[in-house]
Amino acid sequence: MNDIFLRACRGETVPYTPVWIMRQAGRYLKQYQKIRKKVDFLTLCKTSELASEVTMQPVDALGVDAAILFSDILIPVEAMGMKLEFFEKKGPVLSPHIRDKSSLKKLLVPKPEDKLHFVMNTIKILRKELKGKVPLIGFSGAPFTTATYMIEGGTSKNFLHTKRMIFQTPDLYESLMDKVTQTITEYLKAQIRAGAQAVQLFDTWAGIFSPQDYRRYALSYATRVIEHIKNWQKNENRGHIPVIYFVGECAGLLKEIKTCNADVLGLDWRLNIDDAIEEVGNGFSVQGNLDPCALFLPKQRIKERVKDILSRTSSARGHIFNLGHGVLPETPVDNVVALVEHVHNLGKR
Amino acid sequence: MNDIFLRACRGETVPYTPVWIMRQAGRYLKQYQKIRKKVDFLTLCKTSELASEVTMQPVDALGVDAAILFSDILIPVEAMGMKLEFFEKKGPVLSPHIRDKSSLKKLLVPKPEDKLHFVMNTIKILRKELKGKVPLIGFSGAPFTTATYMIEGGTSKNFLHTKRMIFQTPDLYESLMDKVTQTITEYLKAQIRAGAQAVQLFDTWAGIFSPQDYRRYALSYATRVIEHIKNWQKNENRGHIPVIYFVGECAGLLKEIKTCNADVLGLDWRLNIDDAIEEVGNGFSVQGNLDPCALFLPKQRIKERVKDILSRTSSARGHIFNLGHGVLPETPVDNVVALVEHVHNLGKR
Repeated sequence: MNDIFLRACRGETVPYTPVWIMRQAGRYLKQYQKIRKKVDFLTLCKTSELASEVTMQPVDALGVDAAILFSDILIPVEAMGMKLEFFEKKGPVLSPHIRDKSSLKKLLVPKPEDKLHFVMNTIKILRKELKGKVPLIGFSGAPFTTATYMIEGGTSKNFLHTKRMIFQTPDLYESLMDKVTQTITEYLKAQIRAGAQAVQLFDTWAGIFSPQDYRRYALSYATRVIEHIKNWQKNENRGHIPVIYFVGECAGLLKEIKTCNADVLGLDWRLNIDDAIEEVGNGFSVQGNLDPCALFLPKQRIKERVKDILSRTSSARGHIFNLGHGVLPETPVDNVVALVEHVHNLGKR
Repeated sequence: MNDIFLRACRGETVPYTPVWIMRQAGRYLKQYQKIRKKVDFLTLCKTSELASEVTMQPVDALGVDAAILFSDILIPVEAMGMKLEFFEKKGPVLSPHIRDKSSLKKLLVPKPEDKLHFVMNTIKILRKELKGKVPLIGFSGAPFTTATYMIEGGTSKNFLHTKRMIFQTPDLYESLMDKVTQTITEYLKAQIRAGAQAVQLFDTWAGIFSPQDYRRYALSYATRVIEHIKNWQKNENRGHIPVIYFVGECAGLLKEIKTCNADVLGLDWRLNIDDAIEEVGNGFSVQGNLDPCALFLPKQRIKERVKDILSRTSSARGHIFNLGHGVLPETPVDNVVALVEHVHNLGKR
């Protein structure tokens, strides 16, 4: 049984640096494309047999040290009562967007085992199929990042509607965030009950804030989720399920981020990982932080990049190698395979 | 004559903190919209009488301490031989995009006084109209940011084509950057000859890099421009024309940025300005760094934000108040006026 990923999360000694890749199940894999030809993205997320199949694909093809549940961060938002659609190129569309009290009122805090049973089912299938080969990571969008999609109605450039709500109707924002935070907390607890052995909170868009706004309008809600899960774990004697907190564009926010009580901080590539380790101290393991575009380099130069990152992480409590964001659909699979091999070879203790 | 902006750039004593606003001439102003109803954006940029008129609008309406030439960073790219079009919503389109040797070969290094005479003409008109009321800032995109548009053919999300060229055909990238860097250097020199009293280099997209890639693939070219201008100024006894270097998403790149020899570093809002000042030291003045979306706050809270930023800049060699990015088209003008007043009142020495 390979539990190196979990041990690195907890800051325990490991024989080599573990590696997994954000969006490791996805379009860059032919096996994945084959399944997507038969079903649309949402159907794939909701069909446990297929979702577990694509979750397994990179475990077999790449030799990574963890599997991550195949799903989407907007799945729990649909369960809250919003209409969710995915369009080629345009991305996700949520309707009607939440910008006033009446639309907010209609949102539920769903019971995950009821409305999101297919996710828990996928997790149960996966734990059986994995047979302890590698641990299974569950995940959710962090409250702020999830809420941006609900307020904007999809992806955004400036997040103007979101910031407008925050700055002009802070009470409305807080009410929305209460519902979103509760939903996410219950969703992650259900994932852990179903068998997730670690969970990652994706705060992909939290880097759009100044440090003070980040602390108040994004971090505080992520912290609430993490604290709740930590307390619940303790009260239910569930052992130490690591929580990874990933923030996109985190370079200016580390002083704030390090006040949370996640086990692992996920870092993007726009900063030196050694500077981040120095700033956050020894209370955390770190995860990251290769530029996803570096996978378009020749293999020899990918190796140099791996070496460089590994050389910067020697003082970390623990290090899980990963990209600084999701792998891009255009990425050559060979280079991803080479990356994992380089990490395993060069990351030996 | 109000030269407070220039003195703050040079780190000299000033009676109050000067302020100007990136994109201060633009869509959020009714006066600007009125002119844009008559002419399209490119025509406006190229018609010196109109371009100087919209440049003056915010000087009169807001009471800012500097005027900035109304133009677009893609204007010199058109002069290099690419076709430039602007579309509502989609933004600029440059064609044909530069991704191989043959398309690169067709690019010129234009003589600015020839191909870009309308820009120099606008500057000359403005210096007459301003009568020393406030200084006039000239500008250009920095080489990397300019090149992204040429390679992508417009704006981009991941800058994948740009990074692919950098990572897979570095010689091609270098040849392109040679032409772009020369063009920009000559363009800024011509602006100074025409009367620009300071210049800003916009490296808006340079924050997409890891620190090492930033140093090698963006900063090195910006530095080349700045050094050339500095030497030329010295050789021609042109006095001290300040150079402002703005990098978007700069938080993780400050250790690199501080090796350049600009007078002023322009900072975005995703970091604490006091942390940046501590990092870059006393060789620079700083410019920034209010979140453009903070202008949607109630006026009293805008005042608090101004106070906060001013309190963080007391140890700076010099500070020019600005937003961390361009003002948004939806911004209420009243709030911008209030911002300038708050800076002037609260920033008194």
